[in-house]
Amino acid sequence: MSQNFNAYQIISKKRDGKRLTDEEIKWFINGITNGDVADYQMSALLMAIYLNGMNVKETAALTDAMLYSGKTLKFKGVNVIDKHSTGGVGDKASFILGPIAAACGVKVPMMAGRGLGHTGGTVDKVESIKGFKTSLTLEQFKKQLNKEKIVLIGQTKDIAPADKIIYGLRDVTGTVESIPLITASIMSKKLAEGANGIVMDIKTGDGAFMSDLKDAKALAKSLRDTAKRFDKRMVTMISDMNQPLGQYIGNSLEIIESIETLKGNGPKDLTDLSVKLAGAMVYIAGKAESIKEGEKKARAVIDNGKALKVFKNLIKVQGGDEKVCDDYSRLPVAKHKTVFKAPKKGYISAIACKQMGLHCVSLGGGRAKANDKVDFGVGFVLNKKVGEQVAKGDELVVIYHNKNQKKQVDGILADLKKDIKITTAKPKPTKLIFETKEI
Amino acid sequence: MSQNFNAYQIISKKRDGKRLTDEEIKWFINGITNGDVADYQMSALLMAIYLNGMNVKETAALTDAMLYSGKTLKFKGVNVIDKHSTGGVGDKASFILGPIAAACGVKVPMMAGRGLGHTGGTVDKVESIKGFKTSLTLEQFKKQLNKEKIVLIGQTKDIAPADKIIYGLRDVTGTVESIPLITASIMSKKLAEGANGIVMDIKTGDGAFMSDLKDAKALAKSLRDTAKRFDKRMVTMISDMNQPLGQYIGNSLEIIESIETLKGNGPKDLTDLSVKLAGAMVYIAGKAESIKEGEKKARAVIDNGKALKVFKNLIKVQGGDEKVCDDYSRLPVAKHKTVFKAPKKGYISAIACKQMGLHCVSLGGGRAKANDKVDFGVGFVLNKKVGEQVAKGDELVVIYHNKNQKKQVDGILADLKKDIKITTAKPKPTKLIFETKEI
Repeated sequence: MSQNFNAYQIISKKRDGKRLTDEEIKWFINGITNGDVADYQMSALLMAIYLNGMNVKETAALTDAMLYSGKTLKFKGVNVIDKHSTGGVGDKASFILGPIAAACGVKVPMMAGRGLGHTGGTVDKVESIKGFKTSLTLEQFKKQLNKEKIVLIGQTKDIAPADKIIYGLRDVTGTVESIPLITASIMSKKLAEGANGIVMDIKTGDGAFMSDLKDAKALAKSLRDTAKRFDKRMVTMISDMNQPLGQYIGNSLEIIESIETLKGNGPKDLTDLSVKLAGAMVYIAGKAESIKEGEKKARAVIDNGKALKVFKNLIKVQGGDEKVCDDYSRLPVAKHKTVFKAPKKGYISAIACKQMGLHCVSLGGGRAKANDKVDFGVGFVLNKKVGEQVAKGDELVVIYHNKNQKKQVDGILADLKKDIKITTAKPKPTKLIFETKEI
Repeated sequence: MSQNFNAYQIISKKRDGKRLTDEEIKWFINGITNGDVADYQMSALLMAIYLNGMNVKETAALTDAMLYSGKTLKFKGVNVIDKHSTGGVGDKASFILGPIAAACGVKVPMMAGRGLGHTGGTVDKVESIKGFKTSLTLEQFKKQLNKEKIVLIGQTKDIAPADKIIYGLRDVTGTVESIPLITASIMSKKLAEGANGIVMDIKTGDGAFMSDLKDAKALAKSLRDTAKRFDKRMVTMISDMNQPLGQYIGNSLEIIESIETLKGNGPKDLTDLSVKLAGAMVYIAGKAESIKEGEKKARAVIDNGKALKVFKNLIKVQGGDEKVCDDYSRLPVAKHKTVFKAPKKGYISAIACKQMGLHCVSLGGGRAKANDKVDFGVGFVLNKKVGEQVAKGDELVVIYHNKNQKKQVDGILADLKKDIKITTAKPKPTKLIFETKEI
């Protein structure tokens, strides 16, 4: 039957704003995976999808086709819960909520990404811990999850290979910011890795891929709709990315802040968001009656040290140097520091979030291109966040850099004068979470 | 400067419905020609152009970039006039109007296409004449045009190579029927071959690529607008393709009908259209005061045999067997005939035009794929056209086919009952030309 399809007709149908059938979508995705469909045909379809959209049924069919383009894992029980963030600056919540949820009895299978563009990546960050192995086989992944309740690896070619091909094309053809395409990309991977429930952290604001709150809400809905079609539980939260999350930006610096947060010393925004997301994971795993109750349990395992213990153990079982948790000098933090001081007194009213991410990339802490090498040591510590009062000359930002980076640092110092806005009037309080919904 | 462009940004700009600058278009087309832009990026841009359009300025910039992707010819004087048809079924007008215009003193540089889909191609048809060479060098092309006033070759890789790449992608990505893309494809080739003026025959109706009259008018306007930007004269005619043009369909059969028309024995629709188009060529070459006067001159060179003489000479100088003009048995017409008879009396009210083209392809007379081999002999002769009265049992269609094609012929006979509509009421007279405009 599937021989009757052809790429031209399917592309033309979507081009004309019509709905594709499950079979057409499946045929096309199989085609791009096995080579029957050319990449230039895929990119034409991607642009047609970008411009003409896909409804819930089509998005689910796309997710399904991508999901089954590779291997899939299955776990017994309903307590295998993953979390996904659409990415932002200073977002190290995975290192906190993962151990918290595992400490509460949830199984947490983390397949994380690397940094690209202005956002950092969980895999890069954890690799700043000496010895930490992020490439396990699927067999090892499964075994560790069952034994240790938590595992953290990078993306593997066995899981949703169609997503890898498609994402590569979207990245260079202006078709990234499409709700059905984002939905299918996220959901195909999460479903393939065997998650029974997913907690989604959708970022909104200047430092997020979807800066507009309306778009974030539409993506959240699309993700929930798709989860429902696959009979999975989901909580979506839309959280603020108008300023970096927490105070530390940069790979090893973010590991330090994560450990501090697991010790109970984290900044309020990072702690609150991590606890809320972890609480939602505990809830949809069936280990709490509500997200609120899940949050309480989450706070408890920070307070009693169990979450930190899980993180230490995770590092150890994946070959990493778990002593970093007690001795940050074992992390490769850059040796040189330059301080940016407040040029005037007032209130911090804005911190240009995307810019801070790009500054980190310019120091080598992120990737402009997919094959760039990442410097684990460089980054920033923000001593003040939006809403705080400052005096002239206060140390606002500490830049961690290498010896030979004077030129970049001078450029960043000049930019920070614009990036960090100081006003005489106290700004309105910021909101951390804009929406929480479940299905 | 051009280093500052990148494919992603240009695609995204068009995706968002914005106007591209001349420099951006030039950079992109240079990129696809020299390999800096990937074909999957080109196809994403093509889909964005298809869906979001291009204005006159962008279309002209696209034409310009494609035109200068290869070699260009220049001729002295203003009397180098080409004709282009958007293609249809039974459209052999080039073989008639080319010799007519040349006999009237116009230089006619014909670079023609091959058949694809339901439409035939001028190059295939002329190659049914034994020995006719359609691949000359540009030097030979130029020399023959100056000496003989007429030359007919297939497309060469030297002229507008970007068009060849882009057309190949459009053909498989559902981006053919786009007015700016069609305009740039036609105009870049016509301008590169050195035409000073162009007469456009835009087909409308069931057998045309753009079946809708509104679309045909929009394409005509886009072509005139682009011609104006390049300071070229142009006449656009929109002509009927709701039934095949003339009575003969098929490669060598159409050569016979063309010669008959040059001898003054052609069917009315084919003769009239050829004379009108040739008249327009004579007019914009400055050899007549109006299209009407051009038409008179055109009729005169049919009547006095000069146009036929030009065609004979064209065949001879390009290595072909010019004796076919006096002896059609020298053409490879298929030996077997099957007749379709009128199943009832009445008036022919419709002949499914595209279907007739597809029937010809099914016998081997056209191409389903670009590399298919064409059978010059097969085809159809329509004894009756729309509006004519028929008695039950009248021979309506003669199918020319090969011995081993019984199965295909039986299928066609069955289809013809639906393809040729016979009604008791006399249908409204058909219109041959819907619009004539010049710039």
